[in-house]
Amino acid sequence: MNDDVSVPRLLAQTRIASIALSAGGFRLVSGHGLKALDIAYETYGTLNADRSNAIFICSPLTTDAHAAGWHEGEAKPGWWDDMIGPGKAIDTDRYFVIAQNMLGGCKGTTGPGSIDPGTGKPYGSSFPKITVEDMVHAQRLLVEYLGIDVLEAVIGGSMGGMQALQWSVSYPDKLRKCLCIAASASLSAQSLGFEVIGRKVIVNDPNFHGGDYYDKPSRPDGGLAYARMIGHITYLSAVAMHQKFGRNVRPGAESTDLESGFQTGFEVESYLNYQGDAFVKRFDANSYLHITYAMDRFDLVSRHGSLENAFRNASAEFLLVALSSDWLFPPEQTRELGKTLLKLKKVASVAELHSPHGHDAFLLEVEHLSAVIRGFLHQPALNAPRPLPKRVRNGGASVEFDALAKLIKPGSHILDLGCGDGSFVDALFWARDVTGIGIDRDLHHVVQCLRKNVPVLQANVDHGLAFFENDSFDYAVLNRTLQEMKHPRDVLREILRVAPRAIVAFPNFGHVGNRISLMLRGSMPVTRALPHHWYDTPNIHLFSLDDFRDLCKEEGYTIEKLLCVAKSGRSKLLVALGFQNLGAEWVVAQISRG
Amino acid sequence: MNDDVSVPRLLAQTRIASIALSAGGFRLVSGHGLKALDIAYETYGTLNADRSNAIFICSPLTTDAHAAGWHEGEAKPGWWDDMIGPGKAIDTDRYFVIAQNMLGGCKGTTGPGSIDPGTGKPYGSSFPKITVEDMVHAQRLLVEYLGIDVLEAVIGGSMGGMQALQWSVSYPDKLRKCLCIAASASLSAQSLGFEVIGRKVIVNDPNFHGGDYYDKPSRPDGGLAYARMIGHITYLSAVAMHQKFGRNVRPGAESTDLESGFQTGFEVESYLNYQGDAFVKRFDANSYLHITYAMDRFDLVSRHGSLENAFRNASAEFLLVALSSDWLFPPEQTRELGKTLLKLKKVASVAELHSPHGHDAFLLEVEHLSAVIRGFLHQPALNAPRPLPKRVRNGGASVEFDALAKLIKPGSHILDLGCGDGSFVDALFWARDVTGIGIDRDLHHVVQCLRKNVPVLQANVDHGLAFFENDSFDYAVLNRTLQEMKHPRDVLREILRVAPRAIVAFPNFGHVGNRISLMLRGSMPVTRALPHHWYDTPNIHLFSLDDFRDLCKEEGYTIEKLLCVAKSGRSKLLVALGFQNLGAEWVVAQISRG
Repeated sequence: MNDDVSVPRLLAQTRIASIALSAGGFRLVSGHGLKALDIAYETYGTLNADRSNAIFICSPLTTDAHAAGWHEGEAKPGWWDDMIGPGKAIDTDRYFVIAQNMLGGCKGTTGPGSIDPGTGKPYGSSFPKITVEDMVHAQRLLVEYLGIDVLEAVIGGSMGGMQALQWSVSYPDKLRKCLCIAASASLSAQSLGFEVIGRKVIVNDPNFHGGDYYDKPSRPDGGLAYARMIGHITYLSAVAMHQKFGRNVRPGAESTDLESGFQTGFEVESYLNYQGDAFVKRFDANSYLHITYAMDRFDLVSRHGSLENAFRNASAEFLLVALSSDWLFPPEQTRELGKTLLKLKKVASVAELHSPHGHDAFLLEVEHLSAVIRGFLHQPALNAPRPLPKRVRNGGASVEFDALAKLIKPGSHILDLGCGDGSFVDALFWARDVTGIGIDRDLHHVVQCLRKNVPVLQANVDHGLAFFENDSFDYAVLNRTLQEMKHPRDVLREILRVAPRAIVAFPNFGHVGNRISLMLRGSMPVTRALPHHWYDTPNIHLFSLDDFRDLCKEEGYTIEKLLCVAKSGRSKLLVALGFQNLGAEWVVAQISRG
Repeated sequence: MNDDVSVPRLLAQTRIASIALSAGGFRLVSGHGLKALDIAYETYGTLNADRSNAIFICSPLTTDAHAAGWHEGEAKPGWWDDMIGPGKAIDTDRYFVIAQNMLGGCKGTTGPGSIDPGTGKPYGSSFPKITVEDMVHAQRLLVEYLGIDVLEAVIGGSMGGMQALQWSVSYPDKLRKCLCIAASASLSAQSLGFEVIGRKVIVNDPNFHGGDYYDKPSRPDGGLAYARMIGHITYLSAVAMHQKFGRNVRPGAESTDLESGFQTGFEVESYLNYQGDAFVKRFDANSYLHITYAMDRFDLVSRHGSLENAFRNASAEFLLVALSSDWLFPPEQTRELGKTLLKLKKVASVAELHSPHGHDAFLLEVEHLSAVIRGFLHQPALNAPRPLPKRVRNGGASVEFDALAKLIKPGSHILDLGCGDGSFVDALFWARDVTGIGIDRDLHHVVQCLRKNVPVLQANVDHGLAFFENDSFDYAVLNRTLQEMKHPRDVLREILRVAPRAIVAFPNFGHVGNRISLMLRGSMPVTRALPHHWYDTPNIHLFSLDDFRDLCKEEGYTIEKLLCVAKSGRSKLLVALGFQNLGAEWVVAQISRG
């Protein structure tokens, strides 16, 4: 927050770009043309000499160009000021940031309330239907107007995320990074349903007059407010609404029973009233209709035949961010999108922020969202090698990096399951020219991966595997122990589905120490390799090296290489004598399908 | 379904009961009175001689009295014909079933569209606000009108479930069973939000005229249709909408892009249009306002100070049914209600039907809903003893019933975790005068419990324990093995929170056979007591009897009794010699807190 007066405020100002158009005007996907195109925009930070540090912010449904900083005399900063500013995630000390009001809007950019140069009157009902593709086309013209060719990144949340995706499809070579937050390649049926009702309510407002209400004494405020109220419920989660309102009665109301009309005294009603009233003061019903209509019809599948076709030529690096309690754009849709990008061998990461705030989390979860955005934007150069680690963790054991690296052929592509901070994939990149993707469920690890330029999926091991097609990798490395898996056999099958070879690690329950513990003491062993008590161990499927050998045989897998980790002299001796199942405390095995 | 012409159709007919009122009329909670009260109703089946077989069906939001059977010449049967009829779950061969149109409705029962005897005109805006309590009061008068005192059961789904709850609160001695499906003691904030918007849209329809539109040429059909559309989305689940509509374009529409107004060609829009249009033909806007208003303000907590207070005097047996994907009345609310009833020591069962159909599942999941309703209604008499079993399963072992029963003091109250078909609790009832509640996650088992008169909660063991306060029972029996629990120590703690004593079972990993398997063969044992392979065993936390002893010591539990189950001669001998940790294949232990 910039409320601290000691921090100098970023001053902002909205400008209008009047885009020079050719004779045909601004041509829309529908075939219609607009004779003039104004775009309201703001910029923050400084464009560098080679014009390579520009970041474009796409617009959520109803925002204006004032994304960050403070206008002279204003009480509140721009709508995404938490993210954009000096030292913030989208750092205006490093980047030149462009925000704008989208095509069809009502805050300076050409929209249905603008004057039609052909008639000298507001467009109203004559404003042509627009698409997200048209919006992004206008955004591209603004970028060119500002003298920029290639953007460092395009970033958008909610409907802005749809625009960011469209950028990567429409102008694949004009952006290096694409960050899509809480959005999808099309709206779900449920979200569509709410949108549809919202529009009906506006169109049927007695003051709508078919869209030509600009010269009338009243505007369709009722309908617009109700549509916005419906929207607002979809931005929150049921949990958030329960916490925020429950069945509380608003201050001043005696009870929930107000006999005037059918109003209630519930806080949730006051909140919705407030949101509706505030909205009609700042927004135009026709803009709301056109923009939501464009959002509803945005569908990369129907436009391109398939998601694969849509993204085939995309060359940006992607980061997709889903929000756990978002039901307007459910995380499932983000995962689908991620799956497609990975199938197409694009460089793509997927994060899933845990939040109770529903769709609104993209405005509210500042800390976590900042961390992933920062990680994604501020990556190190790929030509500045880092020192290699001596040892890496594989499962619960720490194994020599060299020994593990030697298992993996130079130049191969790997999947690192339970990748932690990504240092293994990163080190392999420098040591063996290996590329890879990590899977980890911990946000902190995901951010660390992003900061190392290691693409990463935030997921459990089992869910993460579902992202991939058969044979997506040369190797899969299971960096958590097989024992911790709920269904170890199924996980092995999945691993050897996505790659012909796998490297897995596990503590050997057949180790002599474990045997003695059970045989002589009659109790479950607690050892270096199995440090937990039986009742709180994550190792829920114990087995010995011989058990593992039997399973591989049964499943038809070949054990190509074995690293038997032994610490004590006795254990080392047993391994050296060939008694691996007695001597190995830990096993790292390279297995293959056939 | 009754479509088969060879099955004789249950003929139905709606009648009007004109309730005789005292001088003050029908007195409402608000203090207002209605001068006349008509109630439209239907009955099915035959009232028995002692008038003890009557079942009352409460009304969901917009249904009429025609719940079952066929009206002369009608194409469709009543709205819950799947459930009510000869041989069906609510069996008209056994019961006399009463259905009705609720107070405030528009299908024959007094409502805002009825003629006010004082003016000779429709009530319209002068119709007083009503509550669920008023509705149930009217329902009680109808039951008396039909010459019935005590109902065998009151059954309601959705808003009808709220009415069923209200019955048990308002008239605790007038119903023996209360079945509440997909409802709660109050609406959630999210559901309230949608309701509030729906009413605003109606009240602001230009044809609403403050509610006095009955003599006008047009009715507020637009507003009513949109309110209904909002409602319809809340009746479905996101998954159901995805499966039903996805982003499909309706037949006949070229694309999703219809340039007339802001209509789309999406199937979901056609569906909503259809639902809206059909609804305005059959329903009155004022009725919708009054009924939803009553539903929104229904809140047993605010009315009685707490849920405990509300149900303190209730004496019915309860069955609460939640629907897994219902987000209008989320299962969490049903669990809360169940928790309260159990805290108050009421006889209550909770089922949670798995369904993708959202709230509508209460109309669609006919098979599963029929099974639980049938189980709940058709219970055996408690004075007809059944033969006792010889052996019962406890965990994976089959144990002599007598040995297990002897651990439990006669007359005690027990919790049976993982209760299966309820036969253990049932047998203890007959053998030892023990009462008990079962927990099981399998619907089939839940139904079997209900049919044995064993109250049951459909839940996992861990979730199920959260239903109960400290010391709710004399004993808790863990009828699944401790090894299968994710967090066995925490489960033990929870078990000994809800009861001072517990009976738990587990296979002893310290058994001589297991030790030898690991010691000599170096592989995980597969035995009678541990019959699974390591990779697909449900036993995720193996431990020996000694390990268990150590844990009990650590936690401060006393092992009061041990049943060591041994099959082979060698094992039996070891146990007899006192080597329990070597000899016992299975252990059943009775432990206590201190």
